[in-house]
Amino acid sequence: MISKNQIKLITGLHQKKQRFANQLFFAEGIKVIQELLQSNFELEYLFTTQNDFEKVEFSKRISITEQELKKISALSTPNTCLAVFKIPAEKKIIDSDLILALDDIRDPGNLGTILRLCDWFGIQQIICSKETVDIYNPKVVQATMGSIARVNVNYVDLKSFITNAKLPVFGTFMNGENIYQSALPQNGIIIMGNEANGISAEIEKTVTSRLTIPRFGKLQKTESLNVATATAIVLSEFKRKS
Amino acid sequence: MISKNQIKLITGLHQKKQRFANQLFFAEGIKVIQELLQSNFELEYLFTTQNDFEKVEFSKRISITEQELKKISALSTPNTCLAVFKIPAEKKIIDSDLILALDDIRDPGNLGTILRLCDWFGIQQIICSKETVDIYNPKVVQATMGSIARVNVNYVDLKSFITNAKLPVFGTFMNGENIYQSALPQNGIIIMGNEANGISAEIEKTVTSRLTIPRFGKLQKTESLNVATATAIVLSEFKRKS
Repeated sequence: MISKNQIKLITGLHQKKQRFANQLFFAEGIKVIQELLQSNFELEYLFTTQNDFEKVEFSKRISITEQELKKISALSTPNTCLAVFKIPAEKKIIDSDLILALDDIRDPGNLGTILRLCDWFGIQQIICSKETVDIYNPKVVQATMGSIARVNVNYVDLKSFITNAKLPVFGTFMNGENIYQSALPQNGIIIMGNEANGISAEIEKTVTSRLTIPRFGKLQKTESLNVATATAIVLSEFKRKS
Repeated sequence: MISKNQIKLITGLHQKKQRFANQLFFAEGIKVIQELLQSNFELEYLFTTQNDFEKVEFSKRISITEQELKKISALSTPNTCLAVFKIPAEKKIIDSDLILALDDIRDPGNLGTILRLCDWFGIQQIICSKETVDIYNPKVVQATMGSIARVNVNYVDLKSFITNAKLPVFGTFMNGENIYQSALPQNGIIIMGNEANGISAEIEKTVTSRLTIPRFGKLQKTESLNVATATAIVLSEFKRKS
């Protein structure tokens, strides 16, 4: 059975402030939880409505009713399990061939989807501006589908990081070289910008290669692509040519 | 001021059954509403907290408080306006070079993002299985960012449509020809499958070319891409080679 204090703790973890204060986050669903257990994430509690997760030590495994799960879940339709993990210490930035830099991505679903994409395309390192949504936000954790265990994410001063890295820097804009016809190197930093405003003026100054994803629609009214789908196309092009 | 009956009507329109019964749907936010107004969508009511949309006839433009908007909105953070439109009569299927077929896409955000992608890549026609989420679901309308006005969507018996079309049929699978190395034609049907289960066994039988998006991650654990990002990569490859 779940205690009142645990309910209070976990509902608190929906907020970034409380995740930071407690150095805890939570994940929902068998698949995501199993991926985190298999990686180096340290489990605090596991709540489940089923008789599953037999390998998890008894003292940390807590039976819970569907009604109780609904109280602590971040999902409109809760799964059967929710696990609380310690937030691991931030790892050093990996010297990955390609680094994805996120300039104020605000939507948790977008960040999660982008992590999953990086995992697919073998991009080991994401660097985020301080204004980018928290990687331990429950909606991000959910959208990563477990990729959170395999892609390294650091929050940095984006401008100074990029300036110091002395690598080719790529950004997508409405005007730029057609990405399909560009020779793309195997290493560098790829910047993706905010959902509403794109790449900020300050970060735009660091870009050494301006790229564009050509638009094929006849009406030419579509303003932009969703940032996660634009990232998919850009990473696909870099990897296809690698 | 909004009436009690209008509140009841609009909160009802959050449900597919009520949208169908009333033949009405709603959209939120200036950008999406303006796109729909400029297209052939027939306005029923416009509710706004601002003194905007002067061109909309007075009898249909209703001032509303933020509290009232919160009651009828489908957004956790409501915009400044919400408009109710008539659901237009389903148009005939367009003889588009490329047709995107959706086999049970359930997530509204995914369907909306896919519509926006089709708009970008000039794909004029989407056909959906009957189990695919309703195009007039508020979350779909929101995620399209106005592209709903420019891409034709029909709900059909997918199997019999594809069988009768006598076109090349493409599907992505874990095993298939590397999409980067495939010659892709300018016309055909591209099938994208359900978020959890992929393309159904019945529809898989209609596929004439099995494609795969190669995975570059070293750990090879990523199970799949999100369906909207996979669609982005597939459409990008078809259009790049067109």
